[in-house]
Amino acid sequence: MNKITKHGITLSVFLLVIFSSGIILSAPLSPQTQTCIACHNASTPGIVEDWLTSRHSKTTPAEALKKPSLEKRISTDSLPKELIEYAVGCYECHSQNTENHKDNFSHFGLRINVVVTPNDCKACHPAEVKQFTGSKKFHAIKNIMENPVYKTLVNTVTGVRTIEKGMMISNKPSESTLHETCLGCHGTKVESKGMKNVTTKSGEITVPDLTNWPNQGVGRENPDGSLGACTACHARHGFSIEVARKPYTCSQCHHEPDVPAWNVYHESKHGDIFFSKYHEWSFDSVPWVVGKDFQAPTCAACHNSLLVSPRGDVVVERTHDFGSRLWVRLFGLIYSHPQPKSGNTTIITNQNNLPLPTTFLGEHASEYLIDKSEQGKRLAVMENLCKSCHSTDWVNGHFSKLENTIRETDEMTLAATKLMLSAWEKEIEDNGNPFDEAIEQMWTRQWLFYSNSIRYASAMTGAPDYTAFKNGWWYFNENLQHMKDFIELKEKKKNSAK
Amino acid sequence: MNKITKHGITLSVFLLVIFSSGIILSAPLSPQTQTCIACHNASTPGIVEDWLTSRHSKTTPAEALKKPSLEKRISTDSLPKELIEYAVGCYECHSQNTENHKDNFSHFGLRINVVVTPNDCKACHPAEVKQFTGSKKFHAIKNIMENPVYKTLVNTVTGVRTIEKGMMISNKPSESTLHETCLGCHGTKVESKGMKNVTTKSGEITVPDLTNWPNQGVGRENPDGSLGACTACHARHGFSIEVARKPYTCSQCHHEPDVPAWNVYHESKHGDIFFSKYHEWSFDSVPWVVGKDFQAPTCAACHNSLLVSPRGDVVVERTHDFGSRLWVRLFGLIYSHPQPKSGNTTIITNQNNLPLPTTFLGEHASEYLIDKSEQGKRLAVMENLCKSCHSTDWVNGHFSKLENTIRETDEMTLAATKLMLSAWEKEIEDNGNPFDEAIEQMWTRQWLFYSNSIRYASAMTGAPDYTAFKNGWWYFNENLQHMKDFIELKEKKKNSAK
Amino acid sequence: MNKITKHGITLSVFLLVIFSSGIILSAPLSPQTQTCIACHNASTPGIVEDWLTSRHSKTTPAEALKKPSLEKRISTDSLPKELIEYAVGCYECHSQNTENHKDNFSHFGLRINVVVTPNDCKACHPAEVKQFTGSKKFHAIKNIMENPVYKTLVNTVTGVRTIEKGMMISNKPSESTLHETCLGCHGTKVESKGMKNVTTKSGEITVPDLTNWPNQGVGRENPDGSLGACTACHARHGFSIEVARKPYTCSQCHHEPDVPAWNVYHESKHGDIFFSKYHEWSFDSVPWVVGKDFQAPTCAACHNSLLVSPRGDVVVERTHDFGSRLWVRLFGLIYSHPQPKSGNTTIITNQNNLPLPTTFLGEHASEYLIDKSEQGKRLAVMENLCKSCHSTDWVNGHFSKLENTIRETDEMTLAATKLMLSAWEKEIEDNGNPFDEAIEQMWTRQWLFYSNSIRYASAMTGAPDYTAFKNGWWYFNENLQHMKDFIELKEKKKNSAK
Repeated sequence: MNKITKHGITLSVFLLVIFSSGIILSAPLSPQTQTCIACHNASTPGIVEDWLTSRHSKTTPAEALKKPSLEKRISTDSLPKELIEYAVGCYECHSQNTENHKDNFSHFGLRINVVVTPNDCKACHPAEVKQFTGSKKFHAIKNIMENPVYKTLVNTVTGVRTIEKGMMISNKPSESTLHETCLGCHGTKVESKGMKNVTTKSGEITVPDLTNWPNQGVGRENPDGSLGACTACHARHGFSIEVARKPYTCSQCHHEPDVPAWNVYHESKHGDIFFSKYHEWSFDSVPWVVGKDFQAPTCAACHNSLLVSPRGDVVVERTHDFGSRLWVRLFGLIYSHPQPKSGNTTIITNQNNLPLPTTFLGEHASEYLIDKSEQGKRLAVMENLCKSCHSTDWVNGHFSKLENTIRETDEMTLAATKLMLSAWEKEIEDNGNPFDEAIEQMWTRQWLFYSNSIRYASAMTGAPDYTAFKNGWWYFNENLQHMKDFIELKEKKKNSAK
Repeated sequence: MNKITKHGITLSVFLLVIFSSGIILSAPLSPQTQTCIACHNASTPGIVEDWLTSRHSKTTPAEALKKPSLEKRISTDSLPKELIEYAVGCYECHSQNTENHKDNFSHFGLRINVVVTPNDCKACHPAEVKQFTGSKKFHAIKNIMENPVYKTLVNTVTGVRTIEKGMMISNKPSESTLHETCLGCHGTKVESKGMKNVTTKSGEITVPDLTNWPNQGVGRENPDGSLGACTACHARHGFSIEVARKPYTCSQCHHEPDVPAWNVYHESKHGDIFFSKYHEWSFDSVPWVVGKDFQAPTCAACHNSLLVSPRGDVVVERTHDFGSRLWVRLFGLIYSHPQPKSGNTTIITNQNNLPLPTTFLGEHASEYLIDKSEQGKRLAVMENLCKSCHSTDWVNGHFSKLENTIRETDEMTLAATKLMLSAWEKEIEDNGNPFDEAIEQMWTRQWLFYSNSIRYASAMTGAPDYTAFKNGWWYFNENLQHMKDFIELKEKKKNSAK
Repeated sequence: MNKITKHGITLSVFLLVIFSSGIILSAPLSPQTQTCIACHNASTPGIVEDWLTSRHSKTTPAEALKKPSLEKRISTDSLPKELIEYAVGCYECHSQNTENHKDNFSHFGLRINVVVTPNDCKACHPAEVKQFTGSKKFHAIKNIMENPVYKTLVNTVTGVRTIEKGMMISNKPSESTLHETCLGCHGTKVESKGMKNVTTKSGEITVPDLTNWPNQGVGRENPDGSLGACTACHARHGFSIEVARKPYTCSQCHHEPDVPAWNVYHESKHGDIFFSKYHEWSFDSVPWVVGKDFQAPTCAACHNSLLVSPRGDVVVERTHDFGSRLWVRLFGLIYSHPQPKSGNTTIITNQNNLPLPTTFLGEHASEYLIDKSEQGKRLAVMENLCKSCHSTDWVNGHFSKLENTIRETDEMTLAATKLMLSAWEKEIEDNGNPFDEAIEQMWTRQWLFYSNSIRYASAMTGAPDYTAFKNGWWYFNENLQHMKDFIELKEKKKNSAK
């Protein structure tokens, strides 16, 4: 019997609402959450209904704690009394750690945080938050915005250019544009600037005045001082493991031309099987059983999920440190290289004193990168995962092909770099900003678009069009040809101008 | 009991066919429709089966009229006797208003129209047709083909170029190519040129000889003099509301690089939730209940559908005037601007006497555009819709970000325009046709491809790759650089040729 | 009752495993297959589970032989005793024709072939293998790698370029890169180089050392001397007809920019209906009933499947010769032309003694191409298929539009060819390799990317964006303009260098 029935009249109204919408709650709601819903059921009903589809609404942490170890969906061992007996409702999440939350405000008699952060989710999911803390994603803002090279790229790409008196002027990007370009994925800095009034359906109310909000970028800086947004992948307010395990979620950011993981997956054999058959699979079971719950991996299967064999042996442990099963870094940097030791990549200094894991000519800043032994361990984890379905020789053949691809794509970047350096030397372009002139842009395409496409397609067993014509080798070689031709045309022009 | 049993022998055969295909009809068919099906069940069985999946085949207008107001799927109050008691079958749709239909012909004893038009659908759906009549889509052919600027763009893009004696010659596009490029979406002019014989499985028959047919472009000119094709979105012969509400329908035309609504949706958070969860949603219920029937909007939810809250309050009324919830126009024109007052945009004249809502430098032809007050009203409708799931502050933050994006993307177009004007001034290119030379083509890309991508991604809460790298800011700035470089190269060439 | 129960202790363990995974087998397994599964259930459980979802695991050839002709899924009339009474398990497929298999090896007491080939599948599916043998896909490696023109294209596109002492050097592509680019789809040459040891979960084992493995390219050269990989479309080990009939399978190779069949389908009306409604369709029934099992075609419906009408009349016979319903060849060659007579296109010699079906100026090598009468027959097959749902006039209108498109796209290629020839004549570029310089690359784009996109969109009734802006006419004309401008810039440079 539903415990909320003892809360009297208000609740009867609430119950009526719930029941009239045809849903029988199987877990009691806290009095505060009932209060939230009593209004929000009218003011933002979509959220409430979405939450009603969630596991959060249908179970209590007390029940979740009783599950056998492999089936557990929460990683804490104990919880405060006020969280344990109720469904995980509005108030349970939006009232954590109020003392840290500069976005906390008094809202119809309750103290509410606008933004729910990893530090709040940690109450039930501490292991996941801890794993996440070690990842590059955790440092996603800093890694792009506090690295002077990347900051220059960001500013060059997203700043408005204007023509004034015939001159092209580059302006700094606005907060707003950063918010929906780079920081849309990496995360914005959400700070409270104080309070403000907003006029709502329920009248004027006073709420925190937040910067760069709304945003669910994975490395978001939160008003409680924490980093990260679980909602980047676990969409509010259903928080469905099914959503996180399907590739659509990853595709929000991992998309061509710079990070074509989604596109490559779509065209791969794994993708073919997923899209053709996934309606027969289970995306909700924990642990996730290879072969029974699914017959081809999604992104999450290889990179994150706890997988077990049909007889219950652990194939790979769950992780929310997204690089922890990776031995090489394939994208986003000029050359491929071993994964960095720390998720915070701003600490890296290469041989040319740039905060990059390789030099422009490809030398590794090895002391900041994992060593061969650690690479081997991680590769072994991934190989073992592949071997759930593929023979050892098959897997070896796959990864040795990838190794060759990494080498060749790096060679193609090196060729582009040499052309760019010659253009700088001949003063055809200026090396002050390596991203703002035509040859430099071609150079950037070489590693940021084309190398990445080819490597992803190689790593993900397929998508021959992404290696060949669609941002692949065709573009690689055509682009080099353009660089060469453009240098010659500009050189000629320069000489004849003398 | 099915009324058609009383029609005797022919019908028994027909019934046998229907029943042998396992479907029990729940609505009586008119004698004429039975005649149609008796043959078409053999000659074009796919259509018949498709129609058998439709609501049209399973209900009568009489029953449809009885539904409570919000659940109604037809908007007429009364219907002629011959339509009311039968399922909506072949004959009911293909025999309307024969006097207007130049494509009417005698077909095995019945007078049949080849093309079913909005004016025919109006018998049951007058409100929808009326709404549609106010839309830009209704005028989709005229808006592109009777606007001299757009006509020039169309001709330049789709005409064959040949090389004759070393000269490049531009030819006018063929009807056939227009039919499958621009007019594939905008609609062709379907006229009857008389009658012709065709050899079919059933022997030689005489049918109307129609121009530019088949076509389901949304603004099609029909042989009854009407405009529009409901089948652009309501695919024949299932006419499924499910199809119209799913984003695949819109993606037929609203696709990158010029109108990347589908692509942006796919990569957005809304899209992520849709693709991951839609198998659990209801796409067939009228009215469509926010949060219960779906937990993330599709195109139709925001732009067209009648939405109600879980307790039955109307969130937004149904509309088939696709711009009626829009306050700004984001795509297809050089600069963003308030929506035009009339769906017929050929009536606009700007300050430079061009039939465009802005000048090449961005000044608005304000008298033809909705004013601030109307803009505010429409924005309020959309905001209210968003607030079904999002807080007021969230929604405000979203739309203020969009406003900034509109401003900046217009600035980027202005920069490109200034470069093009300087190329014209220097006689590097010729301003007779603003679309046919290299710098002009780059200028067109700036607003037709890149601005649109960025604005859509901004408007639709996500898809950071479409703002950043995929036809977004990267291309915006790279393209401006190309314009500048190309002008310099050509200028040099021109000077040294002197 | 399952026969395997009589095999004693090992089998009891095996049965336990099978039953503990909740699946009751309805067909007996051979003793050898039981042995395979006893280990592989632990070593590669994903494969075993995948196979358990297959029809192969659930029926015996004996039962398959009993089906009425149209419902048959195997095309043999008789089978050897050892295959007929057991489910089609590991051993049944991996032990065929061992005498031919250079990849045969002794594996825990059984003689196993690593690679299962069309010649092995032929035991049950001889008609399909025979059809396939006539196709261009069967010769897919030779057609690209033994045609000197295509070999040059392949080498130019996929070879690493390096910069050495300021010079750009083109290198030959590595086996490994060919393997994951062109040959990813066309197929690799899988040969046995001898034996090697690999360390597996079950200890060190000795296995054949295969070149270019793994690969499922459709024309793969197999270690038994046969050609082809059924797994290109029938993904292992589910071998699901559903997968082969869904367009995701074709999208692995038929993908923009060079072969945009998938992309065009996605944006077409057929695709719209498929994606919106396919969850209600049947993809598993044989024969496949037009209108009842599906209401819009997938790739397989038009190109491969046995289709019948709702009353059981054959609409079109099954074929695995993928060109056999095609009268023109739309992609991959410089100009469109009648389909070649032989699937082996290396035998063609055109008027300029090149192994191409047309000359660079578009003359057909007619003696190697099907004639008008054969074209007419094939077109009639396809038209008949369309007429399952569309009227004769509709179908005629469609194909006459396609014909015009073929003519115009060929004209656009001719214009590009003339520009390239003039560049060669003026010695701006060198005609030694027609693919490695900028103007040549633009020429290649014209036919390899843009013509193909427009033709596919025309042929597949839709996707106006692929004819207009997305690799369509916009690019066609812009690209010609670039060719012209680039020739002028280079010419100027060349002249002023004199």
